Amino acid sequence: MRDAYTDQLDAIFDDLAGISRRVQTAVGEATEALMTGNSSIAEKVISQDADIDRAREKVEDSCFALLSLQQPVAGDLRTVVAALRMVAELERMGDLSVHVAKIARLRVPDVAVPEEVRPTMARMAEVAEDMVGRVTEVISGRDVEAAIALGRDDEEMDQLRRRSFTELLGDEWAHGVEAAVDIALLGRYYERIADHAVSVANRVIFVVTGHNPAPAA
Amino acid sequence: MRDAYTDQLDAIFDDLAGISRRVQTAVGEATEALMTGNSSIAEKVISQDADIDRAREKVEDSCFALLSLQQPVAGDLRTVVAALRMVAELERMGDLSVHVAKIARLRVPDVAVPEEVRPTMARMAEVAEDMVGRVTEVISGRDVEAAIALGRDDEEMDQLRRRSFTELLGDEWAHGVEAAVDIALLGRYYERIADHAVSVANRVIFVVTGHNPAPAA
Repeated sequence: MRDAYTDQLDAIFDDLAGISRRVQTAVGEATEALMTGNSSIAEKVISQDADIDRAREKVEDSCFALLSLQQPVAGDLRTVVAALRMVAELERMGDLSVHVAKIARLRVPDVAVPEEVRPTMARMAEVAEDMVGRVTEVISGRDVEAAIALGRDDEEMDQLRRRSFTELLGDEWAHGVEAAVDIALLGRYYERIADHAVSVANRVIFVVTGHNPAPAA
Repeated sequence: MRDAYTDQLDAIFDDLAGISRRVQTAVGEATEALMTGNSSIAEKVISQDADIDRAREKVEDSCFALLSLQQPVAGDLRTVVAALRMVAELERMGDLSVHVAKIARLRVPDVAVPEEVRPTMARMAEVAEDMVGRVTEVISGRDVEAAIALGRDDEEMDQLRRRSFTELLGDEWAHGVEAAVDIALLGRYYERIADHAVSVANRVIFVVTGHNPAPAA
């Protein structure tokens, strides 16, 4: 039988999925701004982050209301606390998209990413955006299988990060210090977005199964 | 009159202050490893991070026990949830110290930080370590005044970060791309430690006053 608690919890998870969708848009648009040097798209990502912040506050308020009024225990309690953590991580992923957009904006009308590292950086961005998209599905469907798969795919991000360092630090690098610093920081931001995506997915595993997934080998 | 709830909450805040103290040690030792190219100190920071992770788990368990058994509402509920968030941030500050230690280790027997940026980087490290030390005091004393002061001092970190970019990107930079990338990432790690310190301090303000501090201008 459905009760008020279940309905309220479902509403919170719907809101979380909605925030995750906004974050996916932010990651995609920040990448577009970065790869094309488009300042108006960069500005859009930066200004729309306030919407994510507001959506986060709404979820936090709902979680506190649920904790106060329903006083859940055991598994239910852990689910609500997990939701509070997930929303904090999703908001952080939005902030990281803003960091990407700010680097893009700083270099307009140029493009921060030199031609020959563009494939690696574009793939990092694609992996990050794809992971956020899958997190949305994981949250809406409470999909443990998809969450486990997400944890495995984080590996590609690590490989891409290493490859981008090899490109930067090779003898053929001809773009100077500024571009190298941009690439290193951009790589860090995309990597952190992926880390948070895995962490959010792991929290869904915990909510559904009651167990934390084993750390990746 | 003191009750079981108050005692348990005090114990949680004592544990938080203990973790903050460990983080301060980690930041200090990571910096020492970085500035001297000492691999055994770097290894120590990396291996001792597991202690911080375990201490975090203990605090989380205590918070869940308190939520389940005492079912706090309103302000008390928010205090316990704030403690859960503070411990997550303190653990993250430990992870960031590990990142600093890993850059130090990667460059041994060299020192990752070239001579002429050492004053700026050393000051960033000092500000970060000092802020973590003050967070410990803020937590143990529930000291709102000290917490507010901490938020103001974050400004120096921003200035130092900008100065380090000016040094990296100036015409006189003669240390190549690798050192520049190291410095950019190290600056990011220290800046994030400082950000988290401010955030933890703000949560103490919230716990004591019931209000979030106004965002810095």
